[in-house]
Amino acid sequence: MKRPLILITNDDGIEARGIHSLVDAVRPLGDIVVVAPDGPRSAQSSAITVNTHLRFWKHLEKDGLQMYRCNGTPCDCVKLALYTILDRQPDLILAGINHGTNSAINVLYSGTMGAVFEGCTEGIPAIGFSLDSHDPRADFSEAVRYAVRITEKVLKEGLPKDICLNVNIPLGEQLKGMRVCRQCYGRWNERFVCRQDPGGNNYYWLTGEFINLEPDAVDTDQYAMDHGYVAIVPCQVDFTHYPTVQQLSHWNEEIK
Amino acid sequence: MKRPLILITNDDGIEARGIHSLVDAVRPLGDIVVVAPDGPRSAQSSAITVNTHLRFWKHLEKDGLQMYRCNGTPCDCVKLALYTILDRQPDLILAGINHGTNSAINVLYSGTMGAVFEGCTEGIPAIGFSLDSHDPRADFSEAVRYAVRITEKVLKEGLPKDICLNVNIPLGEQLKGMRVCRQCYGRWNERFVCRQDPGGNNYYWLTGEFINLEPDAVDTDQYAMDHGYVAIVPCQVDFTHYPTVQQLSHWNEEIK
Repeated sequence: MKRPLILITNDDGIEARGIHSLVDAVRPLGDIVVVAPDGPRSAQSSAITVNTHLRFWKHLEKDGLQMYRCNGTPCDCVKLALYTILDRQPDLILAGINHGTNSAINVLYSGTMGAVFEGCTEGIPAIGFSLDSHDPRADFSEAVRYAVRITEKVLKEGLPKDICLNVNIPLGEQLKGMRVCRQCYGRWNERFVCRQDPGGNNYYWLTGEFINLEPDAVDTDQYAMDHGYVAIVPCQVDFTHYPTVQQLSHWNEEIK
Repeated sequence: MKRPLILITNDDGIEARGIHSLVDAVRPLGDIVVVAPDGPRSAQSSAITVNTHLRFWKHLEKDGLQMYRCNGTPCDCVKLALYTILDRQPDLILAGINHGTNSAINVLYSGTMGAVFEGCTEGIPAIGFSLDSHDPRADFSEAVRYAVRITEKVLKEGLPKDICLNVNIPLGEQLKGMRVCRQCYGRWNERFVCRQDPGGNNYYWLTGEFINLEPDAVDTDQYAMDHGYVAIVPCQVDFTHYPTVQQLSHWNEEIK
């Protein structure tokens, strides 16, 4: 039987520890091709490069593992891989392991999940993995263990059509298990730090804190993580709010 | 009664004809503050700037209209406006009028809709307007007419909680009306144009064509536009596919 082809990318860049942890862990499961940004592309969402050109370079090839680096976004990496680099369609796309959580509304900004959504629109099963720590020395061992188990499961059972997975993993030595759940309702309360350059001109750094707007709801990704579980949210890329289509249909007659 | 405060942004940049058409048209409806990118930021999705700093500049102030330009993404513009530039929360956020359609899966990549989703996560009614033409001389008159009618409607009636609007307007002198509809199911078939720089190194331009995967469905934004109607899709930012949460719940016991 042909080994599955697994495309791996991330948004922290090809040098990040998270992607190397993931690559090392899933190598026994298939043929691996990595196409990842040449540096950090955090919070790039589903951004694609249309106003300039893209480049990519062979980064490393050894023992059957091929790695390419690209000057674009995570989403660009997936498009370049599918339409230029790979000679056949991958059976699975993995993104991560991200340094930092992509639970709740972070899914909207995440470049990791941008790559996953791109795979999803192409009809390819895709999974994003994120660890709830920005510490570069963080312990990835439990994250890796769950990433392997979930990858094995998806390779064996597939995913429902047009569904991808957002997997967020708390930091900890012994997690309690995993929970399939829904995206938590919340938002960021932002604060811009204002500084002055040597010329006296203001510049701004984005900072902020996440506000969980439903801390007591037990079926959310945020709740699962806060209680020591790996959170898996099955995601789709249809933004339509169906009940409102019906609710606003009287506008069809009222606005001419 | 206090005039409503309307924040306007786009992803084509502060010099684009679309945003000036929109500003001119809705000025009678409220106090207008524009915070827009200093140049084109098409296809920036919900990207935010976290690896470098942001700046903004007063661009123009006349007759009560204030315009600022910013070196960030459309989403950055909204965050900067809400947390730094404006002294009160806007009653409405408008984005556009975009040069080019953001119907169907284009909503995922759109910087225009990235700004709209940002407003939505902040609990502010938000509307993205896009015209189905990249011709800089395109006739914006029907687009403007509908943008004003829809803006008036939302100012008067509000929008359901956590719902924003993706409005796409076909090119044409006399449109047939509007349709509240759902996001069309489709994808891009990409093609990268490969060229060589003077040093002999390859570089790539993203091109492609949209594939409508349900051309006969009459309730989609793409169908409405193809038949001469303005398409309005009520959108939300919860990516969860709820039926699949249930369907995969057996994983909770199977993956430890």
